[in-house]
Amino acid sequence: MSEHITSVDTVDVRFPTSLHRDGSDAMNPFPDYSAAYVVLKTSAGAEGHGLVFTVGRGTEIQVAAVQSLAPMLVGQPVDELTADPGALTRRLVGDSQIRWLGPEKGVVHMAAGGLANAVWDLAARRAGKPLWKLLADLTPQQLVAQVDFRYLRDALTEDEALSLLRAAEGGRAERERQLLAEGYPAYTTTPGWLGYDDEKLEWLCREAVDAGYRLIKLKVGGNLADDVRRMGIARMAVGPDVRIAVDANQIWGVPEAIRWMRELAEFDPYWIEEPTSPDDVLGHAAVRKALAPVRVATGEHVHNAVMFKQMLQADAVDVVQIDACRVAGVNENLAILLLAAKFGVPVCPHAGGVGLCELVQHLAMFDFVALSGSTEDRAIEYVDHLHEHFTDPVRLNGGRYLAPTAPGMSAQILPATLTDYRFPDGPQWAAAAGEPTA
Amino acid sequence: MSEHITSVDTVDVRFPTSLHRDGSDAMNPFPDYSAAYVVLKTSAGAEGHGLVFTVGRGTEIQVAAVQSLAPMLVGQPVDELTADPGALTRRLVGDSQIRWLGPEKGVVHMAAGGLANAVWDLAARRAGKPLWKLLADLTPQQLVAQVDFRYLRDALTEDEALSLLRAAEGGRAERERQLLAEGYPAYTTTPGWLGYDDEKLEWLCREAVDAGYRLIKLKVGGNLADDVRRMGIARMAVGPDVRIAVDANQIWGVPEAIRWMRELAEFDPYWIEEPTSPDDVLGHAAVRKALAPVRVATGEHVHNAVMFKQMLQADAVDVVQIDACRVAGVNENLAILLLAAKFGVPVCPHAGGVGLCELVQHLAMFDFVALSGSTEDRAIEYVDHLHEHFTDPVRLNGGRYLAPTAPGMSAQILPATLTDYRFPDGPQWAAAAGEPTA
Repeated sequence: MSEHITSVDTVDVRFPTSLHRDGSDAMNPFPDYSAAYVVLKTSAGAEGHGLVFTVGRGTEIQVAAVQSLAPMLVGQPVDELTADPGALTRRLVGDSQIRWLGPEKGVVHMAAGGLANAVWDLAARRAGKPLWKLLADLTPQQLVAQVDFRYLRDALTEDEALSLLRAAEGGRAERERQLLAEGYPAYTTTPGWLGYDDEKLEWLCREAVDAGYRLIKLKVGGNLADDVRRMGIARMAVGPDVRIAVDANQIWGVPEAIRWMRELAEFDPYWIEEPTSPDDVLGHAAVRKALAPVRVATGEHVHNAVMFKQMLQADAVDVVQIDACRVAGVNENLAILLLAAKFGVPVCPHAGGVGLCELVQHLAMFDFVALSGSTEDRAIEYVDHLHEHFTDPVRLNGGRYLAPTAPGMSAQILPATLTDYRFPDGPQWAAAAGEPTA
Repeated sequence: MSEHITSVDTVDVRFPTSLHRDGSDAMNPFPDYSAAYVVLKTSAGAEGHGLVFTVGRGTEIQVAAVQSLAPMLVGQPVDELTADPGALTRRLVGDSQIRWLGPEKGVVHMAAGGLANAVWDLAARRAGKPLWKLLADLTPQQLVAQVDFRYLRDALTEDEALSLLRAAEGGRAERERQLLAEGYPAYTTTPGWLGYDDEKLEWLCREAVDAGYRLIKLKVGGNLADDVRRMGIARMAVGPDVRIAVDANQIWGVPEAIRWMRELAEFDPYWIEEPTSPDDVLGHAAVRKALAPVRVATGEHVHNAVMFKQMLQADAVDVVQIDACRVAGVNENLAILLLAAKFGVPVCPHAGGVGLCELVQHLAMFDFVALSGSTEDRAIEYVDHLHEHFTDPVRLNGGRYLAPTAPGMSAQILPATLTDYRFPDGPQWAAAAGEPTA
C-alpha cells in the first residue's frame, strides 16, 4: 500500500496571556491565545502540522470540529493529497451534511482550513521547500486549479486569474532573490494594546521606530478621551512620517465609527481596521466614503472569499487583511489574493496571536514573488508573542520578516509546549488553576 | 434561594431520513434531519426546551458548542432570565473568548440561539401562553429592549422600531382573533424534493392543491433538462393560478443562476430561493435585477441580522426567510422582523427539517399580530416530516397553520423519541447500522 495518512491528532493548547493583558482590545479584554492544533502522520513516518488560532474558551469546540472532519483524511494516499490539496479542501468544505453548520464559515470552516494547511505543510516538507517557495514554483495553471471559482466568477474568472499569474511569471526569479536578500516589510501592533498604560505605550512606540518599523498599530474604541490621549502620545513618539494604523475590533456601529474616527483625524491615522461588524460590507463602504483619505482595513474575521469579493466589489476596503486560519486554508487564501490583485488592493496580512505570523508570512511572500509582484503599501502584522514555542519561528530584522527557508509552513509547535500548555491538564494550567483568566 | 437553572442537558438526536431521500436537494442529496436538543431544568421542576436543527454528521460539534455555552445559564435566577432573555442573548453572543469562533455566525451562534430559544420556551410556559402570544402581549418598549441595535442603526434605529410597533398596536386584538379563527397561510415543499420521481412529483402537486395550498416549492439546480421537465409537470398539475417557487440551495454562481433561471421563466416561477451563496448580498442583488419580475428569496443560511440588513439595503431580496435556529434565537429574529417591516419586505419563514415548523410559526404569528399586521404575500413553509415526534406538533388545515395554544415554543420532543433516535446509541441507529446514510 502506498504512503497514506495513518492518524490525525489534535491538541487543545492554550497560553494564559490574559494574565498580562497581552492582546487586549476593545472586544477582547482578556484573550488567552490558543490553538486547536493538528498533526497528520503518514505510514512513512512523515508529518504535517496545522492549527486553528483561537482565544481561549471554546477551543474545545474547534477541536471537536477538527476531529469530526479528520476521518476524511485518514487512509488517504499522500501522493494524491499533497499533489492537489484543493480537491481535499473542496471535500472538507462541501460535505453535504456538515456544510449545514456553516456554510463556509465559523468553526467548521476553520477546521477545514486547519486540516488543509496541515496537508500543505506536509506537501512542502516532502518537497523540501518552505511553503512560499513551493507555491511560487507552481505554474499559473496549477495555481488556478487550486481555487474554487464557483461563487467568484462574477468578479474573477479562471481566465482572469491565469492572466494575473502569467503577467507576474517573468519577474519571479528576480523577486525571489530580492525576498531572500531583503525580507518582507512588517508592521507592529506590540505597542498598542488597550491594557497597556501610557508610559508603556510611549516606550514601545519609540522602540518600534528604533527597530525599523514604518507602520505601527494602536487599539482604539474603549473610551474616546483615552484614544485621543493615546494617539497624541503615539504620534509624538513616532513623529510625522511613521504611519499609525488604528484598530477598533468591531466595537462600533456605522454612524458611531464615523463620529469616533473624526475625533482622531488630527493625528493622521493611516487606516481604521474593523470599524464595525466584519459581515457589514455595505457598512464598511459607508465608513470608507465618510472617512477618506483614512483607509479602511478588515479581514481577520472575514469568513470566506465570497465576503472578500463583495468588500472589493463595493469599494469597501483599501487594505485586505488575510488570515491564515480564518478561511479554508491556503486554497481559499489563494482565491483572496487573486481577488485583491484583480481589484488592485494591497494585502496586509493579519497576524499575532499564536502561530499566525509563522503561517501567514508564506502567503504574503508567495504573493510578492508570483502574483502582485509588489511590497508597496504592504506589510505583514507582527506581534512579539509566543514565537519561542515554534520549531521554525519567524525571524525579523530591521522591521522586516526574513524569508523562512526550512521546509513546510512553519506551523510546528515544540513537543514540550504541547505537553506543558495542553488544556486543561498541562502543568502550566494546573499551576494557574487559582488565577483569573477572564 | 430563588428559582434558578439547575441543569442544561443536551441530546444528539438524528433521524435516518436519507434512506428515503426526503429533503433531498441540489446541495443536500442525503440529509439525516437531526438536532442538538437542549433541556433547561429549574430548581422548581420547570423545563425549557430548545433545539438547533442540523442535517446529520457534525451534530456532535453543535452539541459541543451548546455544552460550552451552558455554564452561562446554570445557577442563573429564572425570574431575571425569563424577564429579559435579551440580556442573556447578549452575554451568549458576546463572550469575549468564544466570540472569536464566529463572530455571530455558524456553530457558536446557533448554540446561543438554541439556548436563548429554550429560555423563551421556559418563559412562555411560566406565563401559560404560547410564545407568539407572549411576544404579542409585550409593549413596543419591551420588544425594542430585546433587540441589540449595535450594528443595525444605519438601517433601523430604536425610535424607528418603536414607531413600527406602535403603529401596529391598535389592531392587535382584532388580528389575534383573526389568527385564532383562521390560522396563518402555509406553503408546501413536500412535492418538490429532487430525489422524487416524476409520478410522485405530479401526484404530490395535485394533492397539495387539493389540500388548499396556493404556493408550492420545487427544488432545482441538479440538471437543467430535468428542471424544465419537472417544472412543466408541476405547472400542468397545479394550473396557472397556484404559485410555484423554486429553490436552488446555493448550487450556482451569479452568472449561472441568471442563465439557468431564464430557461425556467416560461413556467412562471414565483421566487428563486438561494440562487447562490447566502453570503453574497451583492450577488443576490444582481440576480434579482436580472430576473425581475421573478422574486429572490433567501434566509435559511443567512447567519445574522447584519446580513439581513444588507440584503434589504441592497434591494437584494423580495422575500425574507427567517429561520428559528440559524440566528441567535427569538431576540435576533425580532431584529430581522423589524428590519423587514422597515423595508416593507414580506417574511416567509423557512421551515421543515425537524422542529423548524413548530418553532418558527410563533415568530410569524407574532409578526402578524403585533408588527407587520399582514399575511399578504406571506406564508410559512410546511413539510410533512417528523411532526409526530413533538408534544405540541403543528396543526394544518386548508393550507394554513392553526395557531398553537399550548404554553411554550412547541419545541419539546417526545421522551421516547429522544431515547430511540439518540445518536449513535439509540435503538433506531443500532438497527440501521448496516444501512448507507450517505
